[in-house]
Amino acid sequence: MKKIAVFLANGCEEIEALTPVDVLRRAGAVCDTVSVCDRYVTGSHGIIFKADKLLDEFNENDYDAIILPGGMPGAKILGECSLVIRTVESFDAQHKIIGAICAAPAVVLGMNGLSVGRKVTCYPSDSFINVLEGADYTGNNVETDQNLITANGPKSAMQFSLEICASLGLNPQF
Amino acid sequence: MKKIAVFLANGCEEIEALTPVDVLRRAGAVCDTVSVCDRYVTGSHGIIFKADKLLDEFNENDYDAIILPGGMPGAKILGECSLVIRTVESFDAQHKIIGAICAAPAVVLGMNGLSVGRKVTCYPSDSFINVLEGADYTGNNVETDQNLITANGPKSAMQFSLEICASLGLNPQF
Repeated sequence: MKKIAVFLANGCEEIEALTPVDVLRRAGAVCDTVSVCDRYVTGSHGIIFKADKLLDEFNENDYDAIILPGGMPGAKILGECSLVIRTVESFDAQHKIIGAICAAPAVVLGMNGLSVGRKVTCYPSDSFINVLEGADYTGNNVETDQNLITANGPKSAMQFSLEICASLGLNPQF
Repeated sequence: MKKIAVFLANGCEEIEALTPVDVLRRAGAVCDTVSVCDRYVTGSHGIIFKADKLLDEFNENDYDAIILPGGMPGAKILGECSLVIRTVESFDAQHKIIGAICAAPAVVLGMNGLSVGRKVTCYPSDSFINVLEGADYTGNNVETDQNLITANGPKSAMQFSLEICASLGLNPQF
């Protein structure tokens, strides 16, 4: 059974964080939300929801894919979390799936030199695009470059989630 | 300022319940989640989130629109809640906006005789469509009939939310 972790922080974008959880569970996968803050997370639009795990309960070896939601300051908190960054590096080295949406491709990946040479999309503001130094920014709604799947914002959260499912061989039921 | 209430029950579909909240708040509206169960609601895919209000804190006169998410048994619980049904009847009599998605058009509206003579869509299963007796079922992703906006499921939750915004003269920022 496929296992996916969605990293959460206060200020994460709720649609971007929770649409993948719902869609992946519909596909029969185990999808755990992992908070780098507290057990209850407050999203960027004030929705309070419960994480399945805290970061110290997360073991990267248990998972086939990780997902990085956008929203500010949620994505910034993820990008400044050394364990999140080490996990992204480890997943990339193992060619495991990494999903990042909206601010996350820039603020988590780009800010940490993890988008160099990759074809990516992100939220279409200059402040984010400029952080993607060395990347091939396409501006598409969803972009797939090998194991790296990126998307541009909440309106693309469903398409992003379906692309992650497809990359894992999963078929969600609606 | 426009005020919208989203009714929640255990087993409501998370994407359908929370996408409108996020999008309406992006549009600058006040959007309150109102639980007919407990303060913390468990969605149909196991996501636990906090309602802003309990039903006994809800005053229909404060609101311009109500939204009924799908998901089972969430929609069934809403359809069996007399205060929810009285509120739908009152909103319809006042031509205030009513949104219903997935199971809700059938299980909340249809089961209570509130879709007769209306052009509606819902989740495309016979068990739901058959409940829409006397309605004009269109099968579209989103359907608008005067003050009644219906949609067919989680993949249409964003379009449904944007249609509700438009009906209220709201323009969400993404």
